[in-house]
Amino acid sequence: MINVGIIGGAGYTAGELIRLLINHPEVEIDFVFSTSNAGNNITKIHQDLVGSLELKFTDTVNPNVDVLFLCLGHGNSVKFLSANTFSDTTKIIDLGNDFRLESNKVFTSTGSTQIKTFVYGLPELNKGAIVNANYIANPGCFATAIQLGLLPLANAGLINNDVHVNAVTGATGAGTSLSATTHYTWRDNNFSYYKPFTHQHLGEINQSVNQLQNDFSSEIIFMPNRGNFSRGIFATIYTDFEGTVEDAKAIYKPFYKDAKFTFVSDDFLHMKQVVNTNKCLVHLHKHNNKLLITSTIDNLLKGASGQAVQNMNLMFGLEESTGLELKGTYF
Amino acid sequence: MINVGIIGGAGYTAGELIRLLINHPEVEIDFVFSTSNAGNNITKIHQDLVGSLELKFTDTVNPNVDVLFLCLGHGNSVKFLSANTFSDTTKIIDLGNDFRLESNKVFTSTGSTQIKTFVYGLPELNKGAIVNANYIANPGCFATAIQLGLLPLANAGLINNDVHVNAVTGATGAGTSLSATTHYTWRDNNFSYYKPFTHQHLGEINQSVNQLQNDFSSEIIFMPNRGNFSRGIFATIYTDFEGTVEDAKAIYKPFYKDAKFTFVSDDFLHMKQVVNTNKCLVHLHKHNNKLLITSTIDNLLKGASGQAVQNMNLMFGLEESTGLELKGTYF
Amino acid sequence: MINVGIIGGAGYTAGELIRLLINHPEVEIDFVFSTSNAGNNITKIHQDLVGSLELKFTDTVNPNVDVLFLCLGHGNSVKFLSANTFSDTTKIIDLGNDFRLESNKVFTSTGSTQIKTFVYGLPELNKGAIVNANYIANPGCFATAIQLGLLPLANAGLINNDVHVNAVTGATGAGTSLSATTHYTWRDNNFSYYKPFTHQHLGEINQSVNQLQNDFSSEIIFMPNRGNFSRGIFATIYTDFEGTVEDAKAIYKPFYKDAKFTFVSDDFLHMKQVVNTNKCLVHLHKHNNKLLITSTIDNLLKGASGQAVQNMNLMFGLEESTGLELKGTYF
Amino acid sequence: MINVGIIGGAGYTAGELIRLLINHPEVEIDFVFSTSNAGNNITKIHQDLVGSLELKFTDTVNPNVDVLFLCLGHGNSVKFLSANTFSDTTKIIDLGNDFRLESNKVFTSTGSTQIKTFVYGLPELNKGAIVNANYIANPGCFATAIQLGLLPLANAGLINNDVHVNAVTGATGAGTSLSATTHYTWRDNNFSYYKPFTHQHLGEINQSVNQLQNDFSSEIIFMPNRGNFSRGIFATIYTDFEGTVEDAKAIYKPFYKDAKFTFVSDDFLHMKQVVNTNKCLVHLHKHNNKLLITSTIDNLLKGASGQAVQNMNLMFGLEESTGLELKGTYF
Repeated sequence: MINVGIIGGAGYTAGELIRLLINHPEVEIDFVFSTSNAGNNITKIHQDLVGSLELKFTDTVNPNVDVLFLCLGHGNSVKFLSANTFSDTTKIIDLGNDFRLESNKVFTSTGSTQIKTFVYGLPELNKGAIVNANYIANPGCFATAIQLGLLPLANAGLINNDVHVNAVTGATGAGTSLSATTHYTWRDNNFSYYKPFTHQHLGEINQSVNQLQNDFSSEIIFMPNRGNFSRGIFATIYTDFEGTVEDAKAIYKPFYKDAKFTFVSDDFLHMKQVVNTNKCLVHLHKHNNKLLITSTIDNLLKGASGQAVQNMNLMFGLEESTGLELKGTYF
Repeated sequence: MINVGIIGGAGYTAGELIRLLINHPEVEIDFVFSTSNAGNNITKIHQDLVGSLELKFTDTVNPNVDVLFLCLGHGNSVKFLSANTFSDTTKIIDLGNDFRLESNKVFTSTGSTQIKTFVYGLPELNKGAIVNANYIANPGCFATAIQLGLLPLANAGLINNDVHVNAVTGATGAGTSLSATTHYTWRDNNFSYYKPFTHQHLGEINQSVNQLQNDFSSEIIFMPNRGNFSRGIFATIYTDFEGTVEDAKAIYKPFYKDAKFTFVSDDFLHMKQVVNTNKCLVHLHKHNNKLLITSTIDNLLKGASGQAVQNMNLMFGLEESTGLELKGTYF
Repeated sequence: MINVGIIGGAGYTAGELIRLLINHPEVEIDFVFSTSNAGNNITKIHQDLVGSLELKFTDTVNPNVDVLFLCLGHGNSVKFLSANTFSDTTKIIDLGNDFRLESNKVFTSTGSTQIKTFVYGLPELNKGAIVNANYIANPGCFATAIQLGLLPLANAGLINNDVHVNAVTGATGAGTSLSATTHYTWRDNNFSYYKPFTHQHLGEINQSVNQLQNDFSSEIIFMPNRGNFSRGIFATIYTDFEGTVEDAKAIYKPFYKDAKFTFVSDDFLHMKQVVNTNKCLVHLHKHNNKLLITSTIDNLLKGASGQAVQNMNLMFGLEESTGLELKGTYF
Repeated sequence: MINVGIIGGAGYTAGELIRLLINHPEVEIDFVFSTSNAGNNITKIHQDLVGSLELKFTDTVNPNVDVLFLCLGHGNSVKFLSANTFSDTTKIIDLGNDFRLESNKVFTSTGSTQIKTFVYGLPELNKGAIVNANYIANPGCFATAIQLGLLPLANAGLINNDVHVNAVTGATGAGTSLSATTHYTWRDNNFSYYKPFTHQHLGEINQSVNQLQNDFSSEIIFMPNRGNFSRGIFATIYTDFEGTVEDAKAIYKPFYKDAKFTFVSDDFLHMKQVVNTNKCLVHLHKHNNKLLITSTIDNLLKGASGQAVQNMNLMFGLEESTGLELKGTYF
């Protein structure tokens, strides 16, 4: 059994990890760390787990767990690892954005000679490296959806013009803290956007596209929207493409033929096809000179905790889909 | 023109009052008081009013307004009136619950001999008294819906058994402050209840039923629920009734024949029939010995600010429906 | 492996069965029968299954499957079994209401001497009989939630007064056919009821209460409501009860101590605690002489397809929870 | 009083017209025509009007009404006008798309010499022509939102590059007929698109942009989305622009300085700022070389029936905003 520790246990992604891991046949949850909730039952926060779990939040870590999931706000993973020491054999999967970029991928503990180098954990891009990694930077949610829409085209060296991306995410994308735009009366039946053209996930998206197409020099223009739903990301992406839609499919389908969770659909997509699953569905459509790529995921699963478990499975030599064959909600 | 001051200007009911009063032909808004927002444009908070209103929140009152609306949290109207003095001719409409019960209806200012006696402002019950009142205690939202369902039966002296009430309200019923149960991710597609059998509106409901049927001695058993919508109250009420549904209609229709906003519908109701209107719709259904009374209102309008304007119209000798012929949302 | 056939494959409960069974380790789906969709991919209707399932709807049955699930509109199971013959060893689980009442539990094929006697498939009530049954009448969704709220009290012989039930169900409760009240523009942010006091599930509820408390002679007064969500049932039930809430818990907790999916929670409940799980959560609260029992389930899982699989597991000697340890949606 | 006839009375836009016109001080509704509902109370369909309106649907027209609103499915206005004759003085406002394009703007009755020439009824573009028109082609909903975002820039001759538009509409945009994508269980908490790059409103948008900037030769790339709400359109539009955001405001604010319902907001927008109003709010934002224009309306009001009444007011010499100072829903 893989012994697991979870840091930042009261948030959405930690809750999802717990939901996944209690049914994972090879995992035992060793501890769930939350300073603000220490001593309380986990079901006090993750209330759907009544009947499923008898465990309390703790403020003490076990430094010898096999794997540690960091579910902290952005910037806090570095702080946490600086303040806490774990066994050299403890693998780490960081769900925050501290180590996703090449420029930030190395962590050096103060007062230690050990250097941790994080691998960007998108299995469809880096499976070989993930299998051999000890430290994983789990991709962002929007970044996952958008990359899975773009990477096959980048791999074919065919992104030669500006890429226009419009994507919408649910209220869980904004975290558990209360804010004006997550108040029910504001968000119910509403629509808006935030950080137009400047979303922080653009960095990792550009990095991955460049990894596969190193002459890529176009711009990715990204409008992130807030939808009135709790879970899910639906992204539409278009760029100029000379071939037919069949040409595009001939690029995408082979690229994902061994992917466990990413599938190319021949039909138009809607977001609820993937909610509460670890899937990414991709659809291709051509109009005039534009290739329209649709990509949809559950932001908390393939966009966060599900992908983290997928990475864990790869790192520990398990079947990639272990514990991730989820029943979708659909309705 | 009637000069109006609004106290507690950043909340939901104040926002609704402003929305109503800017289109009211006999009203001018003199000031909107909000200490926390003083100096800011009102549109900073009530953002739908962009283009409709150029006015700022203030922390200074004009003590000579014709009418003052108190839109404060429960208990704060007494505090505000104790700390602020207004002209003897300033009428006051309190949307809180400080003065609704007979036992609390009198307010005496410290260091003053003036006594203010509040009239319970449900026009269908107390129109004569409202017309002559200077101080109005505006009814609670649940209390309005439930009373309008029960009062004709009480008036006929026919509530002789326990009354079972189940009602659901939207997230605006919980006020603007952020809380776990108004977070979008919690409330979206959810259902729950609060304060089972002990909701604070039971006091005013019992008081009004007793006003019309003074031998009333049964219990009103009230389950208040939280629905996943922003506006509206839908109440189902049943009690034993010996007559037919036609007998019941013969009691209800005359009772409401002159009501401007309360109507008896012969068809089953759904809540969106009244959203964004000042209406109350009532329906009667009989099964075996039970009379099922359905009553539905918009909690912010007939359940709060709309009724407050209706009371103002009556107090100032205007046509009761002035400024309240609203276009419903319906969808 | 258990070979499964599903009849009425295009509806909600069939879809849920397929979602459950593709991940069930002991099951193989032999065929999914739908005359209107025969020849089409199942993913044409159950679109979230893209990537999970390569199977087409058929209009031909395999009469030798190990178990047959009937997912037909009420009244159609009798018709289907009259028109189609299956092996004597084929077990049948009917998700409709044709065989739930004692008066209807026997099915006799025309031109055959074989008699099929259906057992009412509520594991918390009839586990022993289910284990030995070949034919199961799966309970109704409202009926499951309400019975799980009432049965411990009935078992203690303590339902001695009228029982008041108010419950709300989602739009999947109304079936896949399009109707005015399932149109998005009608149902969004709306609330209403239907069949007040006369819902068809009252028959099976009364039958089960009587099975445990044979002197039960009170009335169950049931208001079924339509909520603006897709999945879930939230039921509040109250009746007179002389003891304390601790007395009530001392009745309920032992009753459910071996239940795999029904749990007594000490905290107030909300519906999303059970959505997309096979759980039923029950809460007890006392006020004056009233015991308030809250019971919440997912109408499509514990209220239909999940319970059907639970019954299948029991009938085939499997661990009761096989394939039913689902990741909840929660948000 | 203006005598009004409404054709296609059971649909969404007819319902909205009735909601508006019953409170319009200068209008009397003469008849509401609906062959399928003739003889029924209007409140049978538009159920929120209980208490507001005592009128029945009819299948007989009064050919002498002052103004006729056509609320028919696209293509049906021509058919209706071919089959029915009205007085030469009857003005007509068509809410469908039959007469919006220059190439289709003339209607010639069979067996008559009278020619009707329709003016495109966007007041912000064509007020002078509308005031003098007898026949109005009311703009499409998406077309209104997008044009109001683009026209000031076109007027300045500054649309010199491709225009990227992403817009989302609610379920009322799809009409009252039941379909898979308007079923509650499908649309609730979902997101999708339709007619990518080929929406029929592109024709009128291009036509109006060309009217103001006759050298316009770029492409408008339009992705129309389906949101999970009932009312509203939220459009984001971007194109290259050399100036600063202040330069852009200096173009937009004067353009709309006399507009009664279109306002430029300095703050980021969200859709509920305009729901249940006749407003259009426009916001400008600059990032690098891109000007981001946000435009939001209520699809049934400024996008349909509200604009139709605005046109009627102009045609009859009334104050443009008569009957259109609506209380927004906001929550």
